[in-house]
Amino acid sequence: MRVVVPFAAGEPKTRLAPLFSPEQRMAFSHAMLRTVVDAVRAADGDPEILATGPVEIDAPVTIDERALTPAVNAVLAETDEPTAVVTADLALATPEAVGRLLTADGEVVIVPGRGGGTNALVVRHPAFRVDYHGASYLDHRHAAREIGATVSVIDSYRLSTDVDEPADLAEVLLHGEGPACEWLRDAGFELAVEEGRVGVERS
Amino acid sequence: MRVVVPFAAGEPKTRLAPLFSPEQRMAFSHAMLRTVVDAVRAADGDPEILATGPVEIDAPVTIDERALTPAVNAVLAETDEPTAVVTADLALATPEAVGRLLTADGEVVIVPGRGGGTNALVVRHPAFRVDYHGASYLDHRHAAREIGATVSVIDSYRLSTDVDEPADLAEVLLHGEGPACEWLRDAGFELAVEEGRVGVERS
Repeated sequence: MRVVVPFAAGEPKTRLAPLFSPEQRMAFSHAMLRTVVDAVRAADGDPEILATGPVEIDAPVTIDERALTPAVNAVLAETDEPTAVVTADLALATPEAVGRLLTADGEVVIVPGRGGGTNALVVRHPAFRVDYHGASYLDHRHAAREIGATVSVIDSYRLSTDVDEPADLAEVLLHGEGPACEWLRDAGFELAVEEGRVGVERS
Repeated sequence: MRVVVPFAAGEPKTRLAPLFSPEQRMAFSHAMLRTVVDAVRAADGDPEILATGPVEIDAPVTIDERALTPAVNAVLAETDEPTAVVTADLALATPEAVGRLLTADGEVVIVPGRGGGTNALVVRHPAFRVDYHGASYLDHRHAAREIGATVSVIDSYRLSTDVDEPADLAEVLLHGEGPACEWLRDAGFELAVEEGRVGVERS
């Protein structure tokens, strides 16, 4: 299946600024993108990057400088073939979790993100369009209902966890298996066990 | 399968104090417990409550005033039959998600919680004991390895989301299907869509 991975090539992951330099944020974002691309490929998906600027990676890259919603909708308008859209910051993605997404039934398959976002979609209905603004998970369910598309929701902690803020890095160190987790360890971050929960610290 | 649901009957969910009165915290905790018990039963599990004090619910209740770890270990020591331990604050639990847990292979099956905790376990090895202190997810994996038990991990957003703090209530309103979600709605809480994410507000 065609799998589009949108990627913000510009100033990524500003909420990680307390921990990372701009260069580190760029490198970590790239490591997360590689994690997603590797997992998609291992799950028999065909990843292509939809980026706001140039990216060095061994996958086809299309550059579209527009915001996420119009850029993804342009891709969906191009073709009626099934298309998955998988966010690039799913640092816990594994082949198994992506495989559950790509093989799930439904004309619209949704992976919600924490806080009501949409982390991944499979679109098999020609009229479906995305809108990532606000509580997009509910909006996408609503939009699917409006066009009579069947909906299914994937229950995956790995795919529902996008990495935006420092606390999310603990999840990467706890559960990550790919390049993003390796990058964090190589950069000297490790788990710090405090009262009942874990955080991250630089060793 | 025998499914033990530990429940703190005393002063539950102190981190929800900014939103709920003590009576409301008690009622909401009870609604979460009912959500878990309903889901376990619908998944063909046999729920029994392991509580620190009296609880009114249509399931067998054992009272053990000790801390979580010794109370659960006392249950595991009683029998060699497979036993699941499912936290009472899994407000997003559904029969399907609990079914994935109860039917998973492995002598120790673990559902991690956000932040390195353990939200649910299935124990099919007589020597396994729990330790809920600290990063218990990693400790439980380690403990299973030490006794040569096979381990599997369940990838479920519903079961990995325990409800501790106000932000978690948005997840209940977004995804909940049982008594906990109904209680929140009846108490006048609804989703509040702010910049890109959702919170909760009282209507």
